[in-house]
Amino acid sequence: MTFEVKYTDLAGRIGRLHIKGRWLETPIYLPVIHPVNQLIPSSQIFDIGYNAVITNAYITYRKYGEEAKERGIHSIIGFPGIVMTDSGGYQVLEYGEVKVDPIEIAEYQRDIKSDIAVILDTPTGYRTPRNKAVETVRKTIKAALDTLPIIERGGPLWVGPIQGGDHLDLVSYSVKEMTKLPFDLFAIGSPVEIMNNYDFTTLVKIVMTAKAALPLGKPVHLFGAGHPLTMALAVAMGCDLFDSASYILFAREGRYMTFYGVKRLEELTELPCCCPICSKGLREILEMTDDERVKALAIHNLYVLKAELNTIKNAIREGRLWEYVSIKSKSHPALYKAVKELFTNRKYFKYLDEGTPMFKEKAVFLFDEIDRYRPEVVRHHERVRSLKIEGERAILLVPETYEAALFIKIRRNLREFLEKEDKFFIASPYFGPIPIEVHDVYPLSQNTMVELDEIGEEEKESYRKVLESFKEIVVVFERGKERFSYNLMKILKDLGKEVSRKGPVRILDFIDDL
Amino acid sequence: MTFEVKYTDLAGRIGRLHIKGRWLETPIYLPVIHPVNQLIPSSQIFDIGYNAVITNAYITYRKYGEEAKERGIHSIIGFPGIVMTDSGGYQVLEYGEVKVDPIEIAEYQRDIKSDIAVILDTPTGYRTPRNKAVETVRKTIKAALDTLPIIERGGPLWVGPIQGGDHLDLVSYSVKEMTKLPFDLFAIGSPVEIMNNYDFTTLVKIVMTAKAALPLGKPVHLFGAGHPLTMALAVAMGCDLFDSASYILFAREGRYMTFYGVKRLEELTELPCCCPICSKGLREILEMTDDERVKALAIHNLYVLKAELNTIKNAIREGRLWEYVSIKSKSHPALYKAVKELFTNRKYFKYLDEGTPMFKEKAVFLFDEIDRYRPEVVRHHERVRSLKIEGERAILLVPETYEAALFIKIRRNLREFLEKEDKFFIASPYFGPIPIEVHDVYPLSQNTMVELDEIGEEEKESYRKVLESFKEIVVVFERGKERFSYNLMKILKDLGKEVSRKGPVRILDFIDDL
Repeated sequence: MTFEVKYTDLAGRIGRLHIKGRWLETPIYLPVIHPVNQLIPSSQIFDIGYNAVITNAYITYRKYGEEAKERGIHSIIGFPGIVMTDSGGYQVLEYGEVKVDPIEIAEYQRDIKSDIAVILDTPTGYRTPRNKAVETVRKTIKAALDTLPIIERGGPLWVGPIQGGDHLDLVSYSVKEMTKLPFDLFAIGSPVEIMNNYDFTTLVKIVMTAKAALPLGKPVHLFGAGHPLTMALAVAMGCDLFDSASYILFAREGRYMTFYGVKRLEELTELPCCCPICSKGLREILEMTDDERVKALAIHNLYVLKAELNTIKNAIREGRLWEYVSIKSKSHPALYKAVKELFTNRKYFKYLDEGTPMFKEKAVFLFDEIDRYRPEVVRHHERVRSLKIEGERAILLVPETYEAALFIKIRRNLREFLEKEDKFFIASPYFGPIPIEVHDVYPLSQNTMVELDEIGEEEKESYRKVLESFKEIVVVFERGKERFSYNLMKILKDLGKEVSRKGPVRILDFIDDL
Repeated sequence: MTFEVKYTDLAGRIGRLHIKGRWLETPIYLPVIHPVNQLIPSSQIFDIGYNAVITNAYITYRKYGEEAKERGIHSIIGFPGIVMTDSGGYQVLEYGEVKVDPIEIAEYQRDIKSDIAVILDTPTGYRTPRNKAVETVRKTIKAALDTLPIIERGGPLWVGPIQGGDHLDLVSYSVKEMTKLPFDLFAIGSPVEIMNNYDFTTLVKIVMTAKAALPLGKPVHLFGAGHPLTMALAVAMGCDLFDSASYILFAREGRYMTFYGVKRLEELTELPCCCPICSKGLREILEMTDDERVKALAIHNLYVLKAELNTIKNAIREGRLWEYVSIKSKSHPALYKAVKELFTNRKYFKYLDEGTPMFKEKAVFLFDEIDRYRPEVVRHHERVRSLKIEGERAILLVPETYEAALFIKIRRNLREFLEKEDKFFIASPYFGPIPIEVHDVYPLSQNTMVELDEIGEEEKESYRKVLESFKEIVVVFERGKERFSYNLMKILKDLGKEVSRKGPVRILDFIDDL
């Protein structure tokens, strides 16, 4: 198997991509290495901790020709790790045609011993008129078909590029056609311009459209997506590999990456980073020659990208990718909109849900309305609605806090009543009705929440379903819960139920009194 | 002047604290140096970029006695920068009484040439019964009065500790009494236990109660508050100095700071950080001896704290402290609650408002409901309500986007109508009615927003006030703004206005048609 998935959260995953007896852990970011003008030696990039890079086969072909076949691409760029090659598709986007045909450049990538090779594609770009976009998709599919005999003979891992740009039906079509061919990976094309325009919502639409149709077992590369703001979002959507030249392009413009956005060096009075470069202090960087400073900035940017990726991987391992993407979303309103689109649009839920483990070691954090859409919350609603709970009288407890310890106390005190006819529920923000018998199922008492006084639509629906059969409902609330219990009573009455409210009481006392 | 304020945002500020011909830039974090058992040499801490530390005068007194007077505290701890000394108050909290009187320890601090000295206080602690808390406040005030003759003779900068714990009236009383005395700085006592309990909301209440009564021109130290989660919040409340031993205490427990919380080293599979320690890789750290690993973790923690502080300082300089505190708030629900308390409780508004510049170079980011409480937004409501705008017919424009470029186009097209009787307003989420004549006043067209369809209470009130005198109101909306304009029309009708709605149109066409 080429790709093994080790951990998942949302649609994100940590995986192992096997390549010629070696393997890469994904998600991974591959810095772009220029085969001719590379300012930061690729061996230094290796030392920073990058064990894979991407370089351009077309430029290599034009510059080195046969020499690269003899020496191999690893020697040409001087990199000891995994080398992925791009076919020159990006050059098509930038300069129009390239002077090579798909078969030629595929054979060339194989012959220079590329580890991961991309067939020649025609990138769609951003806001491309439909007829042009159709043409790019068709050309890319044709190139793939032309290259098929070479792909089938093996060699590198072969990457099938998905085009279509912001024409979502073309993206679907592109996936449908490309997945008929035996590619090892797929790559989603041309997000660079979309990212440069901060149109992250469109990025979500494109990636999720592609992911919906791509086979789960194949790794997905997102071209040109090496940006500290969006990497977490892209991983959460199920992208496994990223590349970009942003570390050096930004450095050339004096732009300095941070975890929350990109700054101009001259805006900074002190450096908000502790990488080996920044630890020298701002003055030392400002006193460098222009060339040295570009190098220093590029290395700093590489450190930031690596730390960001590691933070994302930790978030997957500890089951807090939703939380981490939420933190990042507060870096820019455009990103927040995109994350909201991903998290709350029901059409994507299935994909976020399937990767989210049923049980996690860590508590779920619940902050606000958006967290009502978390898989962990939605699943509870589905589960609770499917239970058959019947009885005469339902008692909804609204405790002062929703700490696990309190739940245990309530349950202990309820033990003798549990045999009786009353049915007990904890009325919880986010989760709605929690039957006391299941309160300790993850994450009903394994969460830390910012309470919400308003009751959401999903909660309402769960109250309706769960309380359907009951004749009488009593809302029992503790001090501080006047507003929540009032809102609760109101929505229960709206459901046509006979409701009374009792409180503020101490819930444990109330149970003793019963 | 001892303290100069250079930049402000919210109640936070960047300042210069002058000390014996030298100065420190605030906000600043002072690592705690143990005068006897200091694992990380203080000179190494200086090299990491810390130019001030705090150490304990009481322990120095017990261990070194007269020797420290001869050599000076800088030589005793081997630190070339600014040295602040604590009096032993923390030892009172931990071990009960200390064997020294206030005058003795004050004189001692002066004699060992401390740069910043704290008089002997009796910390209140957390959840201390009221009578005990009263006693700690009284004792601290008495110690201050006893020490007065020494304070008046100068020497170090003198710090007056504020006690009272979570008894807010006692905090106010403590401030009232302490500010009668000629202290150079004030320090807010004992947040350590509060922080350890994640009760950040109580921290907000204590600090804001103290800050409300403290003179703006005096720097404020927050004892024991060196934590990457809460430093931004503390700075936003107007705290200028922090200290804590957390960098080493956490390291001893194998705890690893990140920008989003503290992890156990064994939880990590890769290091989400790029400091010189972490750049070596996890394996090297795990293979160290226990002692080496504690040192390595402590140095890592110091790098994180420094980068965090620099990030906060940049946020103040660029006027994005609200944004940065919002990002941090998503790290933990308890922190989110605390930030919500600070940002939305009207009683604190005045203090956040007074430090927020009227004009900023950067756009304001608006994400969600909490941002309705931003000083920049609230100020617009105050300003617009005070304008006298009268006329027959008001036209509320609801454009497709709120980009500045569009505002300019609308205004250009409106130029000829501006003489006529219709009054034009842009109806904006967050800001409510924006008279077209002032649309370019900061930040009405210098913002990037996530639009809200619901109209908030402040917006409603502004529509009411501004549209009071008009007989007729027309809501003109563009495509995509059906919901917002519908909500708008509803609230205008609720205000008893005659309202009609026109759309979806292109607003520029509509203006041409008029």
